[in-house]
This record gives sequence, C-alpha cells and structure tokens, in this order.
Amino acid sequence: MSKSRPAWIGIDLGGTKIFGVVLRGDEVTAEAKRKTPVGTGPDRVVETIAGVVEDLGGLHAAGGVGVGAPGAVDHERGTVRRAPNLPGFDEEVGLAALLSKSLGGAEVRLDNDVNAGVLAEHRMGAGQGARDLLGVWVGTGVGGGVVLDGVVRRGPTGIAGEIGHTVVHPGGRICGCGFPGHLEAYAGRGSMEREARDRHARGTATLLVDLADGDRGSARGPGRMTSGVWAKALAGGDAVAEELIDDAVAALGAAVVSAATLLDLSTVVIGGGLGDKLGPSFAGRIEQAARDAFYIRGSSLRVVSAQLGDRAGAIGAALMAADR
Amino acid sequence: MSKSRPAWIGIDLGGTKIFGVVLRGDEVTAEAKRKTPVGTGPDRVVETIAGVVEDLGGLHAAGGVGVGAPGAVDHERGTVRRAPNLPGFDEEVGLAALLSKSLGGAEVRLDNDVNAGVLAEHRMGAGQGARDLLGVWVGTGVGGGVVLDGVVRRGPTGIAGEIGHTVVHPGGRICGCGFPGHLEAYAGRGSMEREARDRHARGTATLLVDLADGDRGSARGPGRMTSGVWAKALAGGDAVAEELIDDAVAALGAAVVSAATLLDLSTVVIGGGLGDKLGPSFAGRIEQAARDAFYIRGSSLRVVSAQLGDRAGAIGAALMAADR
Repeated sequence: MSKSRPAWIGIDLGGTKIFGVVLRGDEVTAEAKRKTPVGTGPDRVVETIAGVVEDLGGLHAAGGVGVGAPGAVDHERGTVRRAPNLPGFDEEVGLAALLSKSLGGAEVRLDNDVNAGVLAEHRMGAGQGARDLLGVWVGTGVGGGVVLDGVVRRGPTGIAGEIGHTVVHPGGRICGCGFPGHLEAYAGRGSMEREARDRHARGTATLLVDLADGDRGSARGPGRMTSGVWAKALAGGDAVAEELIDDAVAALGAAVVSAATLLDLSTVVIGGGLGDKLGPSFAGRIEQAARDAFYIRGSSLRVVSAQLGDRAGAIGAALMAADR
Repeated sequence: MSKSRPAWIGIDLGGTKIFGVVLRGDEVTAEAKRKTPVGTGPDRVVETIAGVVEDLGGLHAAGGVGVGAPGAVDHERGTVRRAPNLPGFDEEVGLAALLSKSLGGAEVRLDNDVNAGVLAEHRMGAGQGARDLLGVWVGTGVGGGVVLDGVVRRGPTGIAGEIGHTVVHPGGRICGCGFPGHLEAYAGRGSMEREARDRHARGTATLLVDLADGDRGSARGPGRMTSGVWAKALAGGDAVAEELIDDAVAALGAAVVSAATLLDLSTVVIGGGLGDKLGPSFAGRIEQAARDAFYIRGSSLRVVSAQLGDRAGAIGAALMAADR
C-alpha cells in the first residue's frame, strides 16, 4: 500500500445498503457502509452516498468516484432508471450529476452494478488474465456482464450482459419480467423460491420451506428463502432443492455455452449471492453442463467461482472511476 | 465508377464454386467464377483461386485479395481447417500464404465466409447504418457473424458468430455436430430435411419429399431438398413443411433474442440460401418470435432479409482486403 498511488472511491448502491471502498492500486484501503434510505426518493439516496464518501475519508484523498447501481444505467449520460428495490428510481434519475453536485463538482462515473462487479473480477478476481470474460451473477435474479478485449460491453441502450433474460427454454417458465423461457425463470432465486413454494403448496414436503419459514407458524407468514437456506437444503439431500438446482445448472449451462459460442469466450465467472454461496462445485457443474453441449470438443472453456464476494461491485465501481 | 478509387479482389471459396468480384468503392466492377476442384487437395484449390483472380483482370489492377472460406479460419494466421465440403482442408491449411505465393507475393486476407458475408451486409447491404449487427446465415447449416462497433468479432479461436451451435432446446434434437439442442438442428436445411424424410418414412405424406425426389423413383435414390423445394412446399400449404419452418422460426427467434439481449443489438440480418429464398416474410416472422420473448417492451429490434444474395461473401472478402 503506497500513498503515492492514486486512490479511487467505489460505491455499490444496493437496495438495502450502500457500500463503499477506497481502492489504491489493487488494494482496498478503506470500507464503509450505510443503510439505503427507503421510500424517500433520489435526494436522500444521493445524500447517503455522499455520507459514505465522507466516511471513507472524503474526496480530498481520492481522484474520483464510481458508482454501481441496479437497473438500466446509461453509462454515458450517468442516469439510472427501472432500478428494482430503489423507490423513486423507476423514472430516469440523473444520479451521476446529482452526486457530483453534492460532492462539490467531483467527477462521478456510473454503471450497472453487475457490470462493475464483472469488471472487478476481470481485473482483480477470478477472471484475471482473461482477454474476454462473461460474468453471470446468480442471486434473486440473474444478471451478467460481458468484457470483450478488456472492455466492458455496454451497448447502445446499456442492456448488454443481461444474460438472465436470454431464452433457454422457448415458451417455458414465465420470468419475473413477464416473458417466457428466460434463464432467470430457472436460475434466479426468486423464481426458484416461487417454484419450491408452489410444489410445497401442492403437497410436496421440502426442507426449503421448513428452513425458510422456521417455527414462525402460518400467522407470521413466510420467511426468507435465502441462499443459505438453499445451501442447507442441498446439504440435507432435499429432493425439491436438488431438482430445482439441477434445472438451474442445466439452464445456466445452456446460456453459458451459447454465449461462449457466439462470442468465442474461454472464461466465465459465476457470482452473485447464490453463486457465491454454492461456490466452486456449482460453477464446476455449470462448466460440465456447458461442455456437454459445446460443439468444440476438448474446449478449454472454464467456468469458475467469483473471488471478490460482495465487495466486487464497489471495487469495480472504483476501477471505473480510475478508467475515466 | 471511378478508376481513381482503389480496387480490391474478393473471393468466396465454396464447396462447388469459387466466385470472385472486383470491388471499387462500393461498386462491383467485375465478376468471375470457376468450379471448385474436388478431391485434389489444397494446391489445386489455390491454383483455381489464382485462375479466378486472373479472370478478374489480375492483381495489377487491385490493391490486394481477400478470401472468405468455410470452416474454422484463423484470421491472424491466415489458416483454415475443418472446412466442410472442401476435401483436404480438415487439417490446418495455410491458405493465405499459399495463395500469396501463387500470386507473386500479393497480400491475402482470409476470413470465415459467413463473417465476410455479414461484413458486406453491414457496409453495403441490409445492415447499413447499424453500429452493431448480427448476421444469421440459414442454409444447409446455420452460420453467423457478429459486428460490434463496426468491427467483426472473431474471437481468440475464430469461432465467434457461430450462432448455429448455440443452444435453443437443452437436451433437444441432435445437431450435425453431435451435440443436442443447437439452433442448426432446428433451422439448418440439412437437419430439417432429415426430419422431413423421417416423418415421410413413418407414413406422413409431404410435398417436400415429392418435390425433392420428383419422378426419380426409388431406384435413383433421393433428390435434393433445395431451398426452392421448401418454398414451393410452403406455398402449397404442406403441413410438414409448415411445421418444420414454424420450429425453425421459433428456434431462430430464441437465438436472436438471446444474442440481442446479451449484446444489446438492434439489427439482425437473415441471409444464406434458405434465408434468401424465404425472404422478408421469413425475417419478419423471426422478428416477431424474438420480440415475443424480448424483455425490453417496445424494443426497436429489427430482423431483416439480406440484400446482397450470394455475392455477399465475395464482396465482404474484398472489403476485408481493403480494411488491411
């Protein structure tokens, strides 16, 4: 850690917390977080991000700020819209400009949070050394990001990388977005939970529901079917969990091999809450499923687990700021 | 047509013919073709290409030569291997170097024939004005090419664009490559013919077989189920043809929407023998199938017919030569 190397602040704007890091070279030298203010609109969110920047030592020690945000981000214009879990961010919000103003005119770069996470894995994590990288973030939904020849592909409307909404079963399960057959409908934890609860309601016992709802009893309503619950149910040999994870692996394998074929990729990183929790064995199963359908025999396609955990988004945001 | 603009020679190396053009600016000023010598190996093929170059007026009038070849092409090294329908090109052949030598040291650029065709449609055909373009070539097999930010994506091993081997139905119909569920197994004319003949053999009457085999009688064996046969059977309301084309459209729609989502594409061109024969109505049906599964509502995704026909490959090869 050398004070002579420039430092950059990276912020991961999440639905529950705003997490920030100071990145100096490839070292995280400070971390801070605050709760995301809910239901109070963009101004309070901007104020809270500025607070996290202050917690990190303020801007005098950093060259600039990068922010990773959920939703549809226009990287060039610094705007975000359709951000799930961020009330007030349905319509387009000029987040980069608002934050810049709040920080006294500092330069602010904005990108999709998954793009930021994938960039971090490419530069400093599981994708180091790869020229091209596909990142698949498996959490409540399924997000993704594509790095081609070292550069994040954003695309003219900013949706590039959204592998969760690629089609793996034409006419199949309805995705949260309303359309049929998308990867997210098979591999997103939200869809998998709906499927598990449906089966439970139809009389199939499953540890998933027992573990999620615990001894709450029906009066308190359902609990959270977290990634940890999925891991425990799998460890306990639960048939419903195994079957749904098998479906997820098959769907992820299909999406991965299709992307790898179309773009000639050799490295894929699996991250996100569920991806991180299930770890290398999950990534390995996806690799096998992809190879089983890959027309290049003896391919060197690797599917590996992300290494940076939930700090990836903030680290990637700092890298974006440094890339200006 | 101005003699002051430089001219480039483009060659499309096919399994039955070698077709060449002289491209000056965006005008084709000469065309020539010879039959591809079969069963005699790379040297005779090189000699025949050199003959076509001679037919086109020779190299003194052109700045260089581009060649589009089937199979796995290494653009950087100028080699081709695994070329279907070109005996002697299974193992790697240094085609660019051999041809250059045969042409007295002229510069020769080599690329995959479909990449060349897609580049031509991007610059001078249906994809003009688009920043990014996916081309899907529907013929005996299904090939493809991707242009991102104006540049053909080749990828480190040269397979980029091979959308025919992306997965549309995990575990589904076996592709010619031996793996299950690929687009080509549903939309390649070879696979579709196998499927039609299977159904015919199991007792389902179809114009496809009647038209293909004509009055040959069983003694002469099956005839060719050409793109024209498919068009006629569809026009005649043949149920098997309609069903198989419906399957092809659904599979193409799924592959197209997945690629458009992953890369944030707005323009897709459908070419190839069958694609050209079935024309704009086929492209329109693929567009509708893609939009029906696209998570961006009101998207401006366009799927259009190729405009350059079977000259696209040679024109694109000339453009590659000019791009050196």
